[in-house]
Amino acid sequence: MSSIEALNWRYATKKMNGEKVSQDKVDQILTAAHLAPTSSGLQPFKIIVVTNPELKEKIKAVAYGQSQITDCSHLLIFAAWDNYTEERIKAVFNHTNNERGLPESATADYVNKLIGIYTSRTEEENFNHAAKQSYIGFGVALTEAAFLKVDATPMEGFDPAELDELLGLRERGLRSTTLLPLGYRDAGGDWLVNLKKVRTPLQDFVIEFK
Amino acid sequence: MSSIEALNWRYATKKMNGEKVSQDKVDQILTAAHLAPTSSGLQPFKIIVVTNPELKEKIKAVAYGQSQITDCSHLLIFAAWDNYTEERIKAVFNHTNNERGLPESATADYVNKLIGIYTSRTEEENFNHAAKQSYIGFGVALTEAAFLKVDATPMEGFDPAELDELLGLRERGLRSTTLLPLGYRDAGGDWLVNLKKVRTPLQDFVIEFK
Repeated sequence: MSSIEALNWRYATKKMNGEKVSQDKVDQILTAAHLAPTSSGLQPFKIIVVTNPELKEKIKAVAYGQSQITDCSHLLIFAAWDNYTEERIKAVFNHTNNERGLPESATADYVNKLIGIYTSRTEEENFNHAAKQSYIGFGVALTEAAFLKVDATPMEGFDPAELDELLGLRERGLRSTTLLPLGYRDAGGDWLVNLKKVRTPLQDFVIEFK
Repeated sequence: MSSIEALNWRYATKKMNGEKVSQDKVDQILTAAHLAPTSSGLQPFKIIVVTNPELKEKIKAVAYGQSQITDCSHLLIFAAWDNYTEERIKAVFNHTNNERGLPESATADYVNKLIGIYTSRTEEENFNHAAKQSYIGFGVALTEAAFLKVDATPMEGFDPAELDELLGLRERGLRSTTLLPLGYRDAGGDWLVNLKKVRTPLQDFVIEFK
């Protein structure tokens, strides 16, 4: 078993047909992203799932009018922590220790080290770091969608500040990083679907030190 | 078929046993990362594969002595473009158009738009953007490794500037972003292998707007 076939099948769907993706498949895609690794296991991001048609229209307006936003079944919005804080870091490790039946002392030194590192950085540096973690989950989610033959469009083309305002994300301590509309391709209306998938030649992509 | 089982199997391997991963499996992991989507298809990152033992020792020294660097079979180093430039953007689209049998004019407007956007940003902003793209491939690669039952350790714990210097990455227009040692777990020597995998409760990870 391998993900190569799924990754070859997928493409950045430009036109979706409005068909609904089953909740079971959406849940599998969310679960995959939820299982993605993150730095120190802090999981500094969340996924917002939008199915509300009026809200999708408003989001389309801050995403250059891209039709997939409204023609998709479920719009996933990846949003990273706006900062790493002592409280957030401690909450993650308290939960982990509880789940593992370990005392707080099991990770106290490590937690203090992390708090020291993150709180000495600027908010913007911390957000950038958290945003990168969200991209790991983003990669995992779009791979899982392809396995399930659910079409998806990885998107950065939107105004994050306007989207954050629209969804009240800053009040939740979050900032949007990427969009992933899920749905099914409208092959007849999609200019990209029949174009060959092209990548940098593999020999230029890989550099070996033997 | 789904990636959830593979993602549940994987963990950030803390101790590897030195066993070699077959070239075929390494190639599949590289191919998966190579197929990962990136913003505008620019693929602004590369993967460096290190198997040389002396070089692995030197890398370990700039990565807090983490044993997986030398006990792994193949060390993958993800490295992003240090900047987006007109030359690089044009080279990607020239290649794509060639492969699709399209004239340069097919993408000229889009290419000019991209050049305008990227060249108006600072080098650091551009590197950060390219780095994020490398994290998509990073997520895809570690998922593929898990499918193949190849252990891996996603790592940010190293000094990127020192690693770049060691490998001469800046001369190639690259800056390292993450490490992914590939190998096989030494279960007897790994403190993490038997600990429960813990994630933020799914109900806190997902926010729904219905």
